[in-house]
This record gives sequence, structure tokens and C-alpha cells, in this order.
Amino acid sequence: MVVTFSRISINCDRLDRHLAELAEIGKLPNGGVCRLAFSDADVQARSLIKTWMLEAGMTVRGDAVGNIIGTYAGTESGAALATGSHIDTVPVGGRYDGCLGVLAGIEVARVFHENQFRLRHPFEVIVFSDEENSVIGCKAIAGNASTDSERYRRKDGTPIQDCLAKVGGNWEALSSAKRDRHDIAAFMELHVEQGGVLEALDKQIGVVTGIVGQYRFMVQIIGRPNHAGTTPMTMRKDALVAAAQLVLAINHLGMLGNGEQVATVGYLKVSPNATNVVPACVDLSIDLRDLSEENLQFMIAQIEQECQAIAKNTGTEITIEQKLHVLPTLAKTELMAVIEKVCQELKLSYTHLPSRAGHDAQEIGRFTDMGMIFVPSREGISHSQDEYTSPEQCAQGANVLLHTLLAIDHCYP
Amino acid sequence: MVVTFSRISINCDRLDRHLAELAEIGKLPNGGVCRLAFSDADVQARSLIKTWMLEAGMTVRGDAVGNIIGTYAGTESGAALATGSHIDTVPVGGRYDGCLGVLAGIEVARVFHENQFRLRHPFEVIVFSDEENSVIGCKAIAGNASTDSERYRRKDGTPIQDCLAKVGGNWEALSSAKRDRHDIAAFMELHVEQGGVLEALDKQIGVVTGIVGQYRFMVQIIGRPNHAGTTPMTMRKDALVAAAQLVLAINHLGMLGNGEQVATVGYLKVSPNATNVVPACVDLSIDLRDLSEENLQFMIAQIEQECQAIAKNTGTEITIEQKLHVLPTLAKTELMAVIEKVCQELKLSYTHLPSRAGHDAQEIGRFTDMGMIFVPSREGISHSQDEYTSPEQCAQGANVLLHTLLAIDHCYP
Repeated sequence: MVVTFSRISINCDRLDRHLAELAEIGKLPNGGVCRLAFSDADVQARSLIKTWMLEAGMTVRGDAVGNIIGTYAGTESGAALATGSHIDTVPVGGRYDGCLGVLAGIEVARVFHENQFRLRHPFEVIVFSDEENSVIGCKAIAGNASTDSERYRRKDGTPIQDCLAKVGGNWEALSSAKRDRHDIAAFMELHVEQGGVLEALDKQIGVVTGIVGQYRFMVQIIGRPNHAGTTPMTMRKDALVAAAQLVLAINHLGMLGNGEQVATVGYLKVSPNATNVVPACVDLSIDLRDLSEENLQFMIAQIEQECQAIAKNTGTEITIEQKLHVLPTLAKTELMAVIEKVCQELKLSYTHLPSRAGHDAQEIGRFTDMGMIFVPSREGISHSQDEYTSPEQCAQGANVLLHTLLAIDHCYP
Repeated sequence: MVVTFSRISINCDRLDRHLAELAEIGKLPNGGVCRLAFSDADVQARSLIKTWMLEAGMTVRGDAVGNIIGTYAGTESGAALATGSHIDTVPVGGRYDGCLGVLAGIEVARVFHENQFRLRHPFEVIVFSDEENSVIGCKAIAGNASTDSERYRRKDGTPIQDCLAKVGGNWEALSSAKRDRHDIAAFMELHVEQGGVLEALDKQIGVVTGIVGQYRFMVQIIGRPNHAGTTPMTMRKDALVAAAQLVLAINHLGMLGNGEQVATVGYLKVSPNATNVVPACVDLSIDLRDLSEENLQFMIAQIEQECQAIAKNTGTEITIEQKLHVLPTLAKTELMAVIEKVCQELKLSYTHLPSRAGHDAQEIGRFTDMGMIFVPSREGISHSQDEYTSPEQCAQGANVLLHTLLAIDHCYP
């Protein structure tokens, strides 16, 4: 691949101003942002995004699931080079998660527009619907959305049909949102890391190697509720002792091998949970993530063995139920190489790392080439009012996005 | 000591009938009993007990904390031989816990009365107030009740003054309830085991070696709440991993040595307790019980060392707060020997065991000679509608009580 550099650069102040302006919509008293998908705040933010896309010289359309697709025409037609992310937040979110990717994409188009420049390829900025919950936006584009509308009903009971109608979509036309690699030749997403690796390594840019696959299990351990005073240790079936063994075994599995995988027990509930009763039952979650599906399978086999051994030595019954499985998506090697080259040319320090959080790129990468650029999150904090990435760091990421797009414009037919 | 045997025996059917009749007061739809101390049901049950005491030829008085003291006069005056227990229950209790000790005591008096027999010593049956919660009844007799009335305020806000007035007591006269070994020469309590040791060993009678001391601690482990996806294992401060190590260390301590001690983590709460967040904080309880205060101190020292080591290897902060300390009370060796001898004469199988639950005898044993007799609890279940000890087992325990009293009547001046 040939990498060409131009002198053009994104406008750091403008990008920062737009991040701040978007964060006013759904702003919380504590400084965080609450802009749940399909809420009034989401609708208001979508309207602002469309205005900015039009200002940047793009045409704007929506699809059946409310994804907003801004297109900056290329000198040629055909498959687009695309970027994008999301503008919905968790109940108490920050201003960077998702928004940076969307606003950096629009900023790139704006810079092209100001410089009266066009890529060969059409350039798309996509705002995906509901990344923080159902991921229906990217899944519909990948053709992987469920056709069971009940699966998308909101916690408050609102049907997905109403949600989509509110943002200009149409549940009945769900399948029309599907696209393929003839529509999108490559997808490049800029995102804050949401972890502390870049900060710890003092690197400016993360070249994402892929988005990890994930398994989630719920484990139930059944022991026997006995009086904690009157029941000798040898006559107990202590569900918490069994759970403690499992927690340590899972943590140990996370430490094995190349250390890229993570294994977490984040949720654990004891019953009856009284100081003077031997625990009768423990429910706990297991969350496993790795780029290697093979390694994930290995970890699961190990956990199953551990559960059998623990059940035996504690006299408990242990059942495991799979709750979630997401396949890993690897970044395209050639796109990683381009990002790396761009970092070198821009004199930005970088490191390779997997994304251990899900992103819209995970679904888009299932049908076309995918790359991701990370910028540091202060103290690794995300999904919080304390989420922070400096204006310079945001601009550095956006510039890497800009120059990567310029570079790959020559690589795709 | 000299043990003398008479042919007299308690009436099995009558004892069983009285247990059933008492269980009607506060009976729950599920078959359990709810007769909280100072409730209307408690007042009603107290009235029935007094009637039965009078029928058994006893004089009845109440003290300042509402303890009911039934006295069957001896051929001599002076210090009494006493028995007793409680008739209050936990919110869902059974019909044997406490009640067996009270009703067996009254049954013994009734048998004496029917046989126109008197011990040398006055014989007392004491119904202690509120064993299941504040243990104010036995504590006041031992002179160990707090003089801070706020410590005895009920969960529903009722002042202890009102509670005591309701059962004929008087908070202002608290100190008048105190007694000493010149009043009670020996105290013998019959109780259901509330554990599964006798059943497991297939023994009819438990010769209690003492009532264990108890420590209770609350531990707080502070880690760091990180995204379970994006935070590499090596960058975590996982409070639950630390807690799991501590749970296993505590369980291990319970298994050491002679195996008489118990060590339990019955309560454990994780924050924020979400599948995708590395646990930031864990609160857990530690309950330690043993007959040996020295061994309890050793266990505490071990736990403190473990906490330091765990805090270091997990990057967490661990604080321990003592919530409860009850000193052990040993049974009088000579009384244990008499119970043993009685079992042999009555051809009842027996074993020695500590009581790992608290009893009124624990406080009474602080100022006078104390002995306890256990009968089996089916499946070790107590504090439940499923609590069960057969009529024959109840009668066996009551007969051991009767004959032990006959025997020790000659041993005390």
C-alpha cells in the first residue's frame, strides 16, 4: 500500500467546541451526560448532527433503524470509505464515548470541504443507533439484527417499532438497512480507549488489533443453609466457599498465557446472606473476553473442569448457563499497517492493543475491512462523568483518522 | 459425687401435648411459630406458662426484666437448683427451641408434685426474657445487662421500658434482677441441639462441654471499579478476588486444630455488583466461635496477617471492625460427669460436644455452676418451621434433666 501525506489537518478547537456543544444535550447536574437511545435528548442530538453534516458538505439520509448516514461525495462512485460511531450514552456517560468518532468523522469531511478536496471514494460518516444497549444500528447494517421485535423492547416497555419511528426509522423495513462490502469498502472507527493501557504505556495512539469476543455465563452454586454456630466445618456445604474457589480459578485463567484475555466475576449474590447462616446459594457471573475464540473455548473448558472439582470438594451443586456469546472481530492487518505508518509520519507514539469493549466496528467488521484507532482515556475511566480525553488527544486521533483515510483512498479499487 | 436413682420418670405424652399447645400461640400458616419477645403472643404464652407452673405446685414470681421464676419448694431453704430456658422465638421459629427447656422443667416439678416429692434444695424453673434478641433476661440475672436503655430499643422503635412494663417488669428496677451463687447453686438447661452432630453420630443425649465464645467482625475491602472488558488483569484492584482469598483463608482456619472451632463468612456484598465492572468494594462478615478464647485470639491474629498479605497482593485496602465479642462459658466438669452417669443408668447413648449457639445458660454460667443437656435436632434444622425433635427424644432429655437434678441435690450443700 502507498501512503500519501497532505499538509491538511483537522481543527482542534472546532472539534473540541463541537464535543462540548453536543454534551450540552442531556447534560446532568454532575457534569455527565444522559442521552439514552431514542430519548428526546437523542432526537435533539441527531438533529444537531445532521445540521453539522450538511454544513460539512455532506448529503444526509437515514435508514430503517435510524442510523444517520452522511455522505461526502468522492471523485468516483462505488464503495465508500466509512467512519462513524454513536451519540447515545449510558445513563451516566461522558462526552467522548462514541461522540468523538462521529464528530471527528464530520470534522474530516469539513476539512475536505474547506479545502475543496475530495477522496476518490465516497466518504461516509455513520451515526449508529443504540450502541449502548441493543446495538441494533450496526447489527442491522451487518444483517445480523434479530427479526424478533420483542428482543428489542425497551426496559420501560416501549416497543422498538415506536423507538424507530421516533428517529425516522421503520421496523417493517429492517432488512433494507443491510449493506455489504460493495457499499462499504472499509470502515475505520476512532474511539476513546475506555481503559488505561495507553495512559499506562504513555502512548498517544492505539492501533487496535481487533475487538475481543465475549462469553458471559451465570453460575449457580447450591449448598446447604446451616446455622453458622452449630454446624461443624466438616458437615457444611458452603456455597460461598465453593464460589471463592471459582472466583480465584477464573482470575487465574485471566492471568495465563499471553495475558491478552480478561476473565471477571463482577456480580456475586449470596443467599440467605446472613452473618450466622452458612451460605446456601451463590449466583455469580463470568465474563470472558479475548481476541482468540480458540483461547476462549479453552478457558471455558477449564472453568467447566474447575466447577466439577469444586462441586466435589465442597459438596455443592454447580450449574453454568451461557448468557452471551459474541465472536471476536479482527482488524484488517493492512489497515493496521497504514495507521501505524500514519502515526510514524505524524510523529505520534503508538502501540497495538485489542479492544476489550464492544464497538459498532465489531459488527461492520463482519462483512468488510475494519480498523480502529484509540486515543487515551484519563485513568482508564469511561461510562462516567469523569471520562476525559484532552482536546489535543482528540485532535491527534482525528488527524490519524484523516490521514489514514487519505492513505487508504489509494488502496481500494 | 454420689448419684442416686429413683424410679420416677417424666410423662412423655404430657410433655409432647404441652409443647403442641404452646406452639398454638403465634402459630404461622406454614406450621412455624412467630412469638417475638414482648409481643401479644409472648404475653399470652407467659400466662399459659404461669398457669402450668401453678398446677405443678410452684409459686410464681416475675422480676424487673420480666423473667418468670417458678419455685417448687425444697425440704430445706437456701440456694436453689435451677433450670429453664425461653419461650420467645425468631420471626419464623419452631416449637422446640427454648420451649423444651421450659416445659421439661415444669414437667419435672409436676412429677415431683404428683409423687409428693421434694428435693432438699428449692427447685426453680426460669423463663428468661427475649433470648432470641437482646438476651436481657439472663444478662440481668447475671448482672451484665447494659444500663443504657437505648441499646435495648426494639427494631420497631418501641422503648425497652414499654416492653418490660408489658410483661410485668420495670426498667428502673433493672439491677434488682441480679442474683448470685447464693441464690442459684447450679443451673442446668435442656435444649435441642440446633445442629446435626447428635444425629450424625446417632447419639441420644449431648453432654455439653460449654458454650462457645464468639467474635463477629465486619470487613471492608476497597478495590477499584474498572471496566471488566477494557482493564487488563494486571491493572486491576479486584475487591472480590481479595474477598475470595479471605473467604478461603477463614474457612481453612475453621478446619485447623481439633476441629472444634467454626469460622464462617455468611454475609458478603459486592459493589457495584455488575457483570461488566471489576468489583470495587466488598463488605463481608466473619463469625468465629470456639470454647477456647485463646484459640479465638489465635484465629484473629491469623486473619489479621492474612488481610495484610491479601491487601498487598491484590492492591486493595482492607479494614476490619469488631462487632461482637462473647466470652466462652465452660460447663462445670462435675455436672458433666453426673449427666454422663445418668445417661449410663438410663441406658441412653451420649457424646460430649460444645454448644456453638448461645443460650441463657451462657450468662448464668458466669456466676454459678452450669450444665447443659442436648437432644437431637432432625437434620440439624432450627429456627425454622421444620425444626423437629421426636416426643421420645424430648422425653429422654427431660428424664436426664430430672435424674441429674435428683443426683446433684446431694452434691450441693
